[in-house]
Amino acid sequence: MRHKTQEPELKAKDILIKFLEGFPDINPDIVREIAERITVESFKKGTILLQEGAIPKNCYYVLQGCLRQYKICEGVDRTIEFFTEKNGAVSSENYFTQSISDHNLACIEDSVLIIGDPIRDQKMFATYPVLESITRKMMEQEWGKTQKAFADFMTSSPEERYLNLLQSRPELLERVPQHQIAGYLGITAESLSRIRKRIISKAYRV
Amino acid sequence: MRHKTQEPELKAKDILIKFLEGFPDINPDIVREIAERITVESFKKGTILLQEGAIPKNCYYVLQGCLRQYKICEGVDRTIEFFTEKNGAVSSENYFTQSISDHNLACIEDSVLIIGDPIRDQKMFATYPVLESITRKMMEQEWGKTQKAFADFMTSSPEERYLNLLQSRPELLERVPQHQIAGYLGITAESLSRIRKRIISKAYRV
Repeated sequence: MRHKTQEPELKAKDILIKFLEGFPDINPDIVREIAERITVESFKKGTILLQEGAIPKNCYYVLQGCLRQYKICEGVDRTIEFFTEKNGAVSSENYFTQSISDHNLACIEDSVLIIGDPIRDQKMFATYPVLESITRKMMEQEWGKTQKAFADFMTSSPEERYLNLLQSRPELLERVPQHQIAGYLGITAESLSRIRKRIISKAYRV
Repeated sequence: MRHKTQEPELKAKDILIKFLEGFPDINPDIVREIAERITVESFKKGTILLQEGAIPKNCYYVLQGCLRQYKICEGVDRTIEFFTEKNGAVSSENYFTQSISDHNLACIEDSVLIIGDPIRDQKMFATYPVLESITRKMMEQEWGKTQKAFADFMTSSPEERYLNLLQSRPELLERVPQHQIAGYLGITAESLSRIRKRIISKAYRV
């Protein structure tokens, strides 16, 4: 179920304009024109954007807030990814292939999101080729980040995974409940607690 | 060290032309013109394309053959990914950010590869915008596939990972040595052998 917040539309558009102004490839003269044609919406914490079993209609970009992608595996809630302003592109194979989603997507903070869909995006790319170029670069970067995170996960112990997260995305540890962080690291909340105690005790010994 | 094979250059170009002809978005009249400007090379099995510690100069697309991306973790060789004709785009965060590579890349079969580099690719995109559009779609697909593989890996047991691989990339099991498949699944060769025996025994019982 989608709950829009009561914040004025203008605020989300202003955030979008600021975001677009950060791309040197976009001519400043057309930033407002492009912003007018991009859909940006505010969502309340707790909004479910996608449910397992549905075909994803949209992709998103997080301008503000935090989304959680998760799966229920034999009754256990497993976090697959967190998306914030620092890794804002939210999509999946199910979106690209328009197939049934094997995961859920929820706002775990009040969030401001760019909303894309295949037909509208294609029209925007035809009108503003610079947007396709920016998207291509963004997809390359996101793919690279996912590849690295996957390789690190495959080749690390749970303690190393926690230390990696502490180094690469320290803000997540402040924003997300510990049991969700534990699931994301592939361990129980109790194991995460033990790892944290061990790290703190090592730090004091040094 | 890079060893080029003695195969005539024409053969690799012909494979490239056939590959480009598979994209309906490329006007058939300019396929040969584009092919002339793309670098394609043949490499012998065993060629090391990238070593840990070096900055990656190139990205690749596998037209024929198989590449293995791997890391040495505390003396243990860990396969991160295999790339074949079916998932041909080979890149990494280190390539996109031009940073020091944390992994190695080797041809584990004689391979025919498209070779890209940031400056040449940018020029090609400026001359043939359709190539940027195709690359954007390819990056989206590759990102989606990597996200799905990562989520499946996180949420599966070793036996489920093996069954997933059997279903999604059966040809890999024929082409790649068992100990490398085991490393890719995050288990030892002995565990993989036990899993395979268990699956065969279950299949006979049914």
